[in-house]
Amino acid sequence: MNVAVMGYGTVGSGVVEIINTKHSYIKERTSEEDLEVKYILDLRDFPGDPNEGKFTKDFNDILNDDSVKIVAEAMGGVNPAFDFTAKCLAAGKHVVTSNKELVSTRGSELLAIAKEHNVNYMFEASVGGGIPLIRPLIFCLAGNEVQSINGILNGTTNFILTKMIYENLTFEEALKIAQDNGYAEKDPTADVEGIDACRKISILSSLASNSWIDPEKVHTEGITHITLEDVAYAGNCECVIKLISTMEKLDDGRYYIVVSPAIVSKESQLAAIDGVFNGALVSGDNVGDVVFYGQGAGKLATASAVVGDIVDCANHDANRRKIGWNEENKDLVADYREVPNRYYIRLKVEDPDLAQNEIRSSFGDIYLLARSGAFNTELAFLTSEFTENEVREKIDGLTSAKLKSFIRVARC
Amino acid sequence: MNVAVMGYGTVGSGVVEIINTKHSYIKERTSEEDLEVKYILDLRDFPGDPNEGKFTKDFNDILNDDSVKIVAEAMGGVNPAFDFTAKCLAAGKHVVTSNKELVSTRGSELLAIAKEHNVNYMFEASVGGGIPLIRPLIFCLAGNEVQSINGILNGTTNFILTKMIYENLTFEEALKIAQDNGYAEKDPTADVEGIDACRKISILSSLASNSWIDPEKVHTEGITHITLEDVAYAGNCECVIKLISTMEKLDDGRYYIVVSPAIVSKESQLAAIDGVFNGALVSGDNVGDVVFYGQGAGKLATASAVVGDIVDCANHDANRRKIGWNEENKDLVADYREVPNRYYIRLKVEDPDLAQNEIRSSFGDIYLLARSGAFNTELAFLTSEFTENEVREKIDGLTSAKLKSFIRVARC
Repeated sequence: MNVAVMGYGTVGSGVVEIINTKHSYIKERTSEEDLEVKYILDLRDFPGDPNEGKFTKDFNDILNDDSVKIVAEAMGGVNPAFDFTAKCLAAGKHVVTSNKELVSTRGSELLAIAKEHNVNYMFEASVGGGIPLIRPLIFCLAGNEVQSINGILNGTTNFILTKMIYENLTFEEALKIAQDNGYAEKDPTADVEGIDACRKISILSSLASNSWIDPEKVHTEGITHITLEDVAYAGNCECVIKLISTMEKLDDGRYYIVVSPAIVSKESQLAAIDGVFNGALVSGDNVGDVVFYGQGAGKLATASAVVGDIVDCANHDANRRKIGWNEENKDLVADYREVPNRYYIRLKVEDPDLAQNEIRSSFGDIYLLARSGAFNTELAFLTSEFTENEVREKIDGLTSAKLKSFIRVARC
Repeated sequence: MNVAVMGYGTVGSGVVEIINTKHSYIKERTSEEDLEVKYILDLRDFPGDPNEGKFTKDFNDILNDDSVKIVAEAMGGVNPAFDFTAKCLAAGKHVVTSNKELVSTRGSELLAIAKEHNVNYMFEASVGGGIPLIRPLIFCLAGNEVQSINGILNGTTNFILTKMIYENLTFEEALKIAQDNGYAEKDPTADVEGIDACRKISILSSLASNSWIDPEKVHTEGITHITLEDVAYAGNCECVIKLISTMEKLDDGRYYIVVSPAIVSKESQLAAIDGVFNGALVSGDNVGDVVFYGQGAGKLATASAVVGDIVDCANHDANRRKIGWNEENKDLVADYREVPNRYYIRLKVEDPDLAQNEIRSSFGDIYLLARSGAFNTELAFLTSEFTENEVREKIDGLTSAKLKSFIRVARC
């Protein structure tokens, strides 16, 4: 069975490498189907590459070759990936992908085309890299209503925060090391601003809620404003700061979906997931808490998930899998500012006693935090539960203090 | 679509409960398929049960009703579960099960019948209760050669060991609490002797190696001989004792498969999986380490995995899934006594100095352990790597010491 790989970057070249090297292993597991990479689509030249005869710059070579049954899209971005994917699906080819931007923004359209043409559009590699998450969520946990998902879904930010927590490096220093080690791009915006994590929690939320969750609707904050002061205060209350992607079903049936840095108790099952590791804590109403974690990202790890989807398609060529979600329900995502939560707040004050009095009279019970080396003009504390609208109003009303830092307390 | 449930014990009644209560939730996710429990097979009477009209004592009611497309077998044991399952599959009904004894011992035959009749025989609930493990292993990780699986696959023994470690209770005291809390059967043999874990690692190993692993070939030891002295020595070298089910692919292509108590470093990702929790650490050659864990067992958790399989069958009625393994390769399981490992050894000695000299001259480098309150006639240490045949010979050759305890060091 012939496979085409679109995009010969990190993931795409990993897919080709695994199919080439695991040939007999895969064959044994696919009812003797012989998986062969027939085309590699990339506009660049790769002189001397062992797959040299397979490169093409013309998408139509793939589209018009009926012997190509499965296409792995590893181009990234929405254009031309959307167009190419749509055409392949409409031509009766299965498409598998690691492209979270495309799946999260225009997956609904592609899933509809796949359904119409009785082929698969699979995207296990789009969330958690090689860590199994999509199939477990939609197939294994189908006997559950998913109550919540809390995940560390971006390895770059987790690496940076881990360096800040355990090596006392600033955000900038840690980012530099991540870049030097290939864990962060030269332009790290999509990672450090939470955009990548937002796409991933949108995909998981779409599957769990069975309704497309537009990433635009997901409140997203990055980690660029996290300071070592915040890390120290968190540490002194047995917590760590992580970039947490949260989806939680509220009592009214709507969903609270937020990506932001969060104060995570060291007791939490996510607290120990450090470095470039990814992980997710899924709560089902019958199964309780289930945790999945691993290194996940990286060339061969992510590529192995793409190959897993390819093998599934090859094994079940005529057997379309029901993966996907219904159209968007525009009322499904709750306004995050109206959902009660606890918060970490750090303030600059002139008169500590005066400020404490004002804070207590406004916030009621607070949990005051300490760190060594702090001036007494710095005040940090955890609040009780308020909506964000309430807490922002309280902060704005303070006359004796100025906001320096504001971080959600994790809901896991 | 009609479902029959065979066996109305803990898991079977949970399956009926979930299908009844999650009716509309499941319907929304199954292309509007209406799942209905039509029959419940049990020889017992359940007067006053809300499902009263559905009970039957005659298996033929299910077998001969063509409207029953999916059968959940939750009877346990091999007979008559094998016979009933075989007949249902041959009649073109999908069968899903939590019955690890049946799957591990006679699954090969049932999978062949399922294949012949183009139906599914699914068993996600047979390992790890509700924790997704089977689909992740065979579908998501299909782009990997699985190098090893190390699992805590039995909640009862993990509960008992956790009580011994953190509450200093003896095995007998901890077992009593497990029984009082419903975590252990009145006859706890299958759990505490490792038989249940052996069935589960046999299933996972059969899937990973793509060849039936007969549970009879898996060396299995229970935890009844673990003492608080052993727990204390382990604690003093930053380790815990867990019942670990191990499968590891050796360099010669054979598999080392053992269920036994093991000394696990607190650094290991399995060390913190406590109480009735289950977990597995799977290593793939591309994805690296992936960990799955959760409470897993319990009525609704396990039942939710059975329902997940039912929903999968309903969603893909005509679409058989390729789940299973090839026939047994009788040379695949290595003799565990010939595979090098490290060991914990506790000895009773008369003369400590004399014994230490003899031990060092026989074992070479050892790592001596301590515990508070030990008499100096007790010696405990960790060895370097030896095959078990070698280490047993060394122990037998000691003239100044008598073996009190022997525990493998975990390979994870």
